[in-house]
Amino acid sequence: MTQKLNILVWNEGVHERNNDPATMADMYPDGMHGAIADALQRYYPDAAITTATLASPGFGLDEETLASTDVLLWWGHMAHDDVPDEVVERVQRHVLGGMGLVALHSAHFAKIFTKLLGTTCSLKWRNEGERELVWTVKPSHPIAAGVESPIVIPEQEMYGELFDIPDPDDLIFISSFTGGEVFRSGVTFSRGKGRIFYFSPGDQEYPVYHHPQVQRVLANGVGWVAQPQQHRQQPAVTNPARESFLA
Amino acid sequence: MTQKLNILVWNEGVHERNNDPATMADMYPDGMHGAIADALQRYYPDAAITTATLASPGFGLDEETLASTDVLLWWGHMAHDDVPDEVVERVQRHVLGGMGLVALHSAHFAKIFTKLLGTTCSLKWRNEGERELVWTVKPSHPIAAGVESPIVIPEQEMYGELFDIPDPDDLIFISSFTGGEVFRSGVTFSRGKGRIFYFSPGDQEYPVYHHPQVQRVLANGVGWVAQPQQHRQQPAVTNPARESFLA
Amino acid sequence: MTQKLNILVWNEGVHERNNDPATMADMYPDGMHGAIADALQRYYPDAAITTATLASPGFGLDEETLASTDVLLWWGHMAHDDVPDEVVERVQRHVLGGMGLVALHSAHFAKIFTKLLGTTCSLKWRNEGERELVWTVKPSHPIAAGVESPIVIPEQEMYGELFDIPDPDDLIFISSFTGGEVFRSGVTFSRGKGRIFYFSPGDQEYPVYHHPQVQRVLANGVGWVAQPQQHRQQPAVTNPARESFLA
Amino acid sequence: MTQKLNILVWNEGVHERNNDPATMADMYPDGMHGAIADALQRYYPDAAITTATLASPGFGLDEETLASTDVLLWWGHMAHDDVPDEVVERVQRHVLGGMGLVALHSAHFAKIFTKLLGTTCSLKWRNEGERELVWTVKPSHPIAAGVESPIVIPEQEMYGELFDIPDPDDLIFISSFTGGEVFRSGVTFSRGKGRIFYFSPGDQEYPVYHHPQVQRVLANGVGWVAQPQQHRQQPAVTNPARESFLA
Repeated sequence: MTQKLNILVWNEGVHERNNDPATMADMYPDGMHGAIADALQRYYPDAAITTATLASPGFGLDEETLASTDVLLWWGHMAHDDVPDEVVERVQRHVLGGMGLVALHSAHFAKIFTKLLGTTCSLKWRNEGERELVWTVKPSHPIAAGVESPIVIPEQEMYGELFDIPDPDDLIFISSFTGGEVFRSGVTFSRGKGRIFYFSPGDQEYPVYHHPQVQRVLANGVGWVAQPQQHRQQPAVTNPARESFLA
Repeated sequence: MTQKLNILVWNEGVHERNNDPATMADMYPDGMHGAIADALQRYYPDAAITTATLASPGFGLDEETLASTDVLLWWGHMAHDDVPDEVVERVQRHVLGGMGLVALHSAHFAKIFTKLLGTTCSLKWRNEGERELVWTVKPSHPIAAGVESPIVIPEQEMYGELFDIPDPDDLIFISSFTGGEVFRSGVTFSRGKGRIFYFSPGDQEYPVYHHPQVQRVLANGVGWVAQPQQHRQQPAVTNPARESFLA
Repeated sequence: MTQKLNILVWNEGVHERNNDPATMADMYPDGMHGAIADALQRYYPDAAITTATLASPGFGLDEETLASTDVLLWWGHMAHDDVPDEVVERVQRHVLGGMGLVALHSAHFAKIFTKLLGTTCSLKWRNEGERELVWTVKPSHPIAAGVESPIVIPEQEMYGELFDIPDPDDLIFISSFTGGEVFRSGVTFSRGKGRIFYFSPGDQEYPVYHHPQVQRVLANGVGWVAQPQQHRQQPAVTNPARESFLA
Repeated sequence: MTQKLNILVWNEGVHERNNDPATMADMYPDGMHGAIADALQRYYPDAAITTATLASPGFGLDEETLASTDVLLWWGHMAHDDVPDEVVERVQRHVLGGMGLVALHSAHFAKIFTKLLGTTCSLKWRNEGERELVWTVKPSHPIAAGVESPIVIPEQEMYGELFDIPDPDDLIFISSFTGGEVFRSGVTFSRGKGRIFYFSPGDQEYPVYHHPQVQRVLANGVGWVAQPQQHRQQPAVTNPARESFLA
C-alpha cells in the first residue's frame, strides 16, 4: 500500500486524560489514537498521519484541516456531546463531499455517526471481558483482504444486536461473544460522495488496537474509504437547461 | 386490501392557500392531500384517513396523533423550514418506532426526510412539463403489484440524478423524462423498526395525484409501510446480564 | 393471517424412509414435512396445504402442481442429486415467474437453491447438538414480526460462515452457536418475479420444527414469499417498437 | 493505475469473422476485443493483456490460462451456445475463486452470466441507433471515478427494463434512450470470492468501444474487479472441530 494519503486519527482523549481505566497509560502510552496512528504508518509509510483530540485547538477539525484530510478515523465515548453541532455539520459536509470516515467502537453514538445514518445506532452492551470472534462474511471485499477468519480477540466489551443502523452497503464482519450475542461488527455505508466504514472492536479496557489483525482491518478500511482524487464538494441541487449536457 | 389502518395525509398546504399555481383550486379543490386521501379511501374503505397541514393545531403532528397513526404521507415544498425541529424529532422517533412514512415529490427536501437519510437529498430539477415514464425494475415488490410499466405521466416536473440518497433497500421504479434525465423515483428504506417509501411524481403544477396508476402506487406504498402490529418504540440501548435471554 | 394460499411442503423424505436417526419416527411421525404442514395450517386455516417427497409421482413437482402452488417449501439433504435437472429447471421457472420458495436447512445444497443463487452455497458444519441462538437484525421485516430475539434452540447442528451466498436482499436473522461460530440464518432473495426465503434451523437430529418460534418464522416466511396475484410467467426478452407503451 | 495485472479480453468473434455488420472491419480492424485491449493497455501500461475468441485453441479458456488471469472481459452475442458447459463451469469456478469478470453488452445472455446470476437476464431491446445517456448514480464508487455524467453515446442499441437480474450490490449507472426506456447499465455483483461488473453499452453496430468515456469505465471496472492477491480457490464446505480456530 504505497498510496500517499492524509490521515487524521481523532480521539476524544478523555479516557487517556483521566487515565481511566488505570491501565490506560500502560496500554496506550500515546493514547489509542497514537497506537492507531503508529499502526497505520507501518501500512502507509508515505502517508501524512496526524492525531487530534477534544483538547486540540478547534477540536483539530477546522475547515482547513478537513479540506486536506483524505481519511478521518473517529473514536469517542464519554464526551460525544462536547463536540459542537457546527463541527459535526462541518465533518458531515466533508464526508458527503468525499472524505473517508472510519468510525470506531463507541463512536456508534458519536453525533457525526448518528447524523449520517439517521437512526439511533443503539445496541446491547456488557463489559465483562468476553472473547470476541470476528468472522468474515464478504471475502471479496477489499477490507477483508488478508484478514484471518475469525479474528480472535481474547477480551472485549460485548456489543450485541439489535444494532439500530440502516442496512449497510456491505456487511463484511459479524462477531460473536462468549455470552452468545452477535453483532454486525464491520459494515460500510456510502453517503453522498463519501465512504464510511464502521468497525466495532476497540474498547478502552483492552489492548485491542495492538492486535495485528485489528490493525490490518483498520489499514484496509483506510484504504477503502480514501478517495484522494475525489473533488471535495457535497452534492447540490441544480436546475439545468434541456440538453445542457451537450454543451 | 381490507386492512383497517389509521392514515394521516400531511401536506404543508401552502400552494393551496395561495392558489399557486392558479390552476390549483380547480385541479385540487380539497388540496393535494384531499385528493390523495380520497384515492386511498377507495383502496382502504375501512381505513380511518385524516389530513393535516401547517395550519392545523400543533401542525397536526402532536404526540397523541402520531401514536395512533400507522402511516404518515408527507407532501412539502415551500415551507420545509416552518416545521419546527421538535416536531421533526417527534416524527423521526415514531418512524424509528414503526410508523410508516410515505414521502412525496418535493418532500425529498423535507427536514424529516433528510434527517432520516443523513444525506443532502439534492437532485436536478426543471419544470417544463416534460413527459415522465415510470418503469418498474423490481416486479416482485408489493409496491409494484398491479402497476403498469411504464406509467405514462403526460406532464411533470423533471427530477434527475444525481439524487443524493443512501443506497435504498429496494429500488422499485426508475423514471425517464423527455429531456433524457433519469431518476430513482420509487425507493424504500428501513430505519429503526420503521419503513419508508419515497415516490417522486407529484408536482403541484400538474394533476398527478388524479392519475389512477399513481394512486395505485400510493395505495401499495401505504400497505407496504404499514405495521399496525408493531410495538411503537424506537430501539434503545440495553445492558443485559449474561444469558438473560434464558429467563 | 387469513390469506387463502396453496402451499406445498416438499421433503426428500429419505431420513424418514430410513428412520435415520432412530428418533425420527418418534420425533416426526408424519415426517418433517408433516410437522411443518400442521404448523402452517394453524397459521393459515384457510390454506390448501399438501406435502410431497422424492417418492411421490413425478416427485410431486409436475407442471400442473407447480402452476397452482403459491409457496413451495423445500427440505433436502441426502438426495439432492436424485432430483432430475428438468424438475429443477421447472421449479426455477416457476420461482422466476412468481412462486414463493422457502428453502430449509440443508436445502442450501439443493440444486434449486444453488441454481437460483449461482454460488457454491457452501458453509461450515458440525453436528454436536450445540445451542443455537437466532437473533433478529431487521425488526421492520414482516418475517421478523412477533418473533422473539433470540430464539433459543437448545440443540442444533452448527452452520457457520463463510456461507457462500450472494449478498441477500434482506438479512433478517443471524445465529450464533455454542462453539462461537455465526451464520446468516434468515435471508431473503428476489429472483425474477419471485421471492425466496432461506432459514437454516432444522436439522433432522433435533425436534426443531416443533419449536413454536421456528414455526412462527416459517409462517411469516410463507406469508412474505406468497404472491397469489402475480401473473405466473418468468420475464422474457421483448423487442418493442418505439413508444409502443402509448398504444 | 500502475497495478500489474493479467487481463484477458474474450470475444466470441463471430461478428468480426463474418464482417457483420459490413462496417465491422473498418470500425474494429482488430475486432472489438482488440480495441478494448488497446484501450486498457493505455490505462494499465504494465499489464499483460491478451485476447481470445471462440476460434482460439480451447476457446482460450483452459485451466492454465484462467489460473493466471486476474480479470476476464467477456463479449458474446450470436454464439453463446457454442461455449461448452464445461468451459462455463470452469470460468464460474474461477470467478467464485476470485477472478474478476467484466461482462459486456449482449453478454447479459452469455451462459457464464446467467449461471452466476440465476435469473433469465432478459431485457427489452430495439436496434435503431438511439442516443444513450449513461448517468452516474453512485459517485462514491471506484468505477465512477473520473467519469462524466451523463456519458453521451450518439447511437446505440436500446436495452430497456425490465432487466431480469438479482438486485445488484452496487448500481452505478442508469441509462436512458431516445425512446424513453431506462436501463441499469452499470451494476456490480459479488459471487463467492469474486467480483463482477456488467456494463451494457457496446453494440457491434456502433463504435462504442472507441468512446473515451466508455474506455474509462472499462478501465475502472477492470481495476475494481481485479484481486491479484486473492488466493484462487472457491469456497468449500468444511467440518471444523470445536474451537479449531484457536490452533
